[in-house]
Amino acid sequence: MAETSGQKDVVTAAVLVIGDEILSGRTKDKNIGYIADHMTAIGIQLKEVRVVADDEDDIVAAINALRKRWDYLFTTGGIGPTHDDITADCVAKAMGVPIGHHPEAVAMLEENWKKRGVEATPARMRMARVPEGGMLIRNSVSVAPGFMIGNVITMAGIPSVMQVMLDDATQYLKTGKKMSSVTIDCGLPEGVVADMFGAHQKLFPDVPMGSYPIMRDNKPTTQLVLRSTDPARLAEAEAGLRAKLAGMT
Amino acid sequence: MAETSGQKDVVTAAVLVIGDEILSGRTKDKNIGYIADHMTAIGIQLKEVRVVADDEDDIVAAINALRKRWDYLFTTGGIGPTHDDITADCVAKAMGVPIGHHPEAVAMLEENWKKRGVEATPARMRMARVPEGGMLIRNSVSVAPGFMIGNVITMAGIPSVMQVMLDDATQYLKTGKKMSSVTIDCGLPEGVVADMFGAHQKLFPDVPMGSYPIMRDNKPTTQLVLRSTDPARLAEAEAGLRAKLAGMT
Repeated sequence: MAETSGQKDVVTAAVLVIGDEILSGRTKDKNIGYIADHMTAIGIQLKEVRVVADDEDDIVAAINALRKRWDYLFTTGGIGPTHDDITADCVAKAMGVPIGHHPEAVAMLEENWKKRGVEATPARMRMARVPEGGMLIRNSVSVAPGFMIGNVITMAGIPSVMQVMLDDATQYLKTGKKMSSVTIDCGLPEGVVADMFGAHQKLFPDVPMGSYPIMRDNKPTTQLVLRSTDPARLAEAEAGLRAKLAGMT
Repeated sequence: MAETSGQKDVVTAAVLVIGDEILSGRTKDKNIGYIADHMTAIGIQLKEVRVVADDEDDIVAAINALRKRWDYLFTTGGIGPTHDDITADCVAKAMGVPIGHHPEAVAMLEENWKKRGVEATPARMRMARVPEGGMLIRNSVSVAPGFMIGNVITMAGIPSVMQVMLDDATQYLKTGKKMSSVTIDCGLPEGVVADMFGAHQKLFPDVPMGSYPIMRDNKPTTQLVLRSTDPARLAEAEAGLRAKLAGMT
């Protein structure tokens, strides 16, 4: 759970993607990468992602596993008007609270429908259902809101809608120190730098280092990535690595 | 675990994506959607996906949770020569077996390195390490193999390499009945069809139905998707739905 007082250096999050259409391959997820970038930008560390089917037991189990372990849980998908949209009910069940129509959400939807001459059917009104105690997350694209309850933020699956909801939710999030990173494209194959790079990681155990081989101009090269929330420490690790690389070429 | 005899109607799988670079947003995953499509095409139902960091405890826990629940587990990422490539060790630990250099993998790599005039360093030789009892999965792109042990298939994270490994692994997989699907673009907003569609799902509880709102020519429409491994049953559900939709327009 997020701390209620004091500043934490590290704030963590998980994402739960809900939907048969992702697992069948019919829809290609575009939200995981977007949320990952956003978390890095605002100073939250994304630590785990899960994708589950439209199955109540699986969704509830995943919500509870992730919300209990990480500071925040963002869910995407399953908040529309149809029978397969069960995310709000699953969040309520996982949190052990009842669910009902949120008066503010009802008012927002009714106003929008009135303008557009759309009938307020029970199915449409499902989109105003929020677990008790939940706070609305605004949707400037298509009105029907998401919500935040405890450390769980529930958003739409459609990327354009998810993105505006994520922007709105951000004001409510505690953030930690921002993770900075340095990427060095070393011009050498991964197998050549591996021993040196592994030894360098041991010298800086607090600066996570990753190695990503790519092909450039038909020749193998490696991107060496260093990450830290401490810019001075990151600069020190970078300088040491550059010196070692200079000795290899 | 996969059955050792007899044909199952339903064969399930999970994917475990391993890597800090996906969670930081630095690399956008392209493997989940590809594997999802491939599973649907060959008659395996993808049921769950997880993304975890390069952390031994987290990887081992995810491997055990997923391999025990589903028929197959595919892992991507973390099998290169550098210190952050710990997937093979984690699979060995999860399965409770030792890990060592696989003679066939050593021979394949040495032959390739000899041709290219590349030195066989200990770091490079890490790529020949396979949990005891594992079978090699061929890599026609960059030689260093993946492996299959029990119901766990360990593949590279680079999409082009993952894809050839997935092709090679497919010959060893038991598959179930293929899932067929029908998509009807109904030309109506989701809120209009929701009640009818929910009632139709109740008539065909064995045919999972999903509803995906999209905008077309600036007007909202809904794609109604019906899925079944039984083509006759799928046709029956489709005909019933088309009749109901005809009555609405």
